[in-house]
Amino acid sequence: MTVKRNRMSPEARKTAILDAATRLLTVQPWENVTVAGIVAAAGISKGGFYHHFISREDVLLAVIQRLADDSVAAGQASLARLETDPVARYSNFLIQEARWELSHAGKIAAIVRMAKQDGNAPLLIRLKEESLRRNLPIVRALIGDGMAKSVFQVVDVGLTADLLLEVGRMRWPTFLRARQLALAGDRASGWQMIRERVRAEEGLTNRLLGLADRAVRFAPVDDYAPLLDPGCALP
Amino acid sequence: MTVKRNRMSPEARKTAILDAATRLLTVQPWENVTVAGIVAAAGISKGGFYHHFISREDVLLAVIQRLADDSVAAGQASLARLETDPVARYSNFLIQEARWELSHAGKIAAIVRMAKQDGNAPLLIRLKEESLRRNLPIVRALIGDGMAKSVFQVVDVGLTADLLLEVGRMRWPTFLRARQLALAGDRASGWQMIRERVRAEEGLTNRLLGLADRAVRFAPVDDYAPLLDPGCALP
Repeated sequence: MTVKRNRMSPEARKTAILDAATRLLTVQPWENVTVAGIVAAAGISKGGFYHHFISREDVLLAVIQRLADDSVAAGQASLARLETDPVARYSNFLIQEARWELSHAGKIAAIVRMAKQDGNAPLLIRLKEESLRRNLPIVRALIGDGMAKSVFQVVDVGLTADLLLEVGRMRWPTFLRARQLALAGDRASGWQMIRERVRAEEGLTNRLLGLADRAVRFAPVDDYAPLLDPGCALP
Repeated sequence: MTVKRNRMSPEARKTAILDAATRLLTVQPWENVTVAGIVAAAGISKGGFYHHFISREDVLLAVIQRLADDSVAAGQASLARLETDPVARYSNFLIQEARWELSHAGKIAAIVRMAKQDGNAPLLIRLKEESLRRNLPIVRALIGDGMAKSVFQVVDVGLTADLLLEVGRMRWPTFLRARQLALAGDRASGWQMIRERVRAEEGLTNRLLGLADRAVRFAPVDDYAPLLDPGCALP
């Protein structure tokens, strides 16, 4: 009789599979990621894999859903908060989102790397769609609240929500370029790049919402300092 | 001795290949489009195909380049015009672009259909990148001109250009939904959808450029009437 040691719980095994698949996707295009490769990276048996997933496409979908769920958790929390001032509520949304992103900077850097693998285009489009599907209702609700209270003046709720999300999506490639500059020794330029990007996003957000500049506030730029610290590995 | 009749010129043959490949892409994902299928649809020989292209990937790239070149021609023409007023210049850019799009509505509808084929995601991303690469310098130049003359007040030239192009990219799915409504008998709703979309884009453009509402003007909404005419097939 074989005694299996260190046997994982089903939940831990599923997480190990998703972690392994996500990791593999950051170093190779999806078409090269096999069930055998995932199983080896996760340290589980093929039987264990097929207990949770019916195919590699099935894992792909689960990886995408998990990334999208993670990205939206902060926004949902801020929507539930009780501020009655729409400006404070929107600022809180941006600050919570920034804090979540900073504490998951390693995972976001991995997604940016993933996006650069040629064959991963369908995956990235799916991730964008899943993320939009979750984030659009939140941003629309925040805008709608501000409109209903005659605080925001937007041209078109739907288009404005699309554009606000588009601004946010382009944030991290800039932050990671800033980190590369700092790691290469030019911390001052990296710092200026982050400062300008944060200010630009704050300015565009207020303009799109029909507010005075600096009404809605982004997270303080100093929060991003760890990104430029060569001694600080991304989590 | 075999006499070949109706022999195409090399240029005509190349165009026939690109036309056939573009047509096939509107009804099936790229992975199902074969050299044999393109050759049959273009009415040429395999030898004729390989005279111009080394592989199906090679045709794909040429199809994308041609679509992107077409889409940018109107913008380039308006950049070359002599208006010294940045507002008139930007309006002219939008109006020229709208005219080009309307006279190529059939091709644009085909691209929107192409985008809905699952396997075409990499192609669509490539098309978006190629189109951005051509359009961004034009829009940045138009914005830069308006800033230099202290007429436009934008938050950030690069981000603003990205957002202005993003607004335009989302235009046609709305127009085609409006046409479907009209073809189904509800012309009034289709007309309202187009009117609201054009007004929203005009409003957002002026806001992003830091102008009064209705300073920069989009093409007159009446220009879009043919889209709603059931008797008028898309070209």
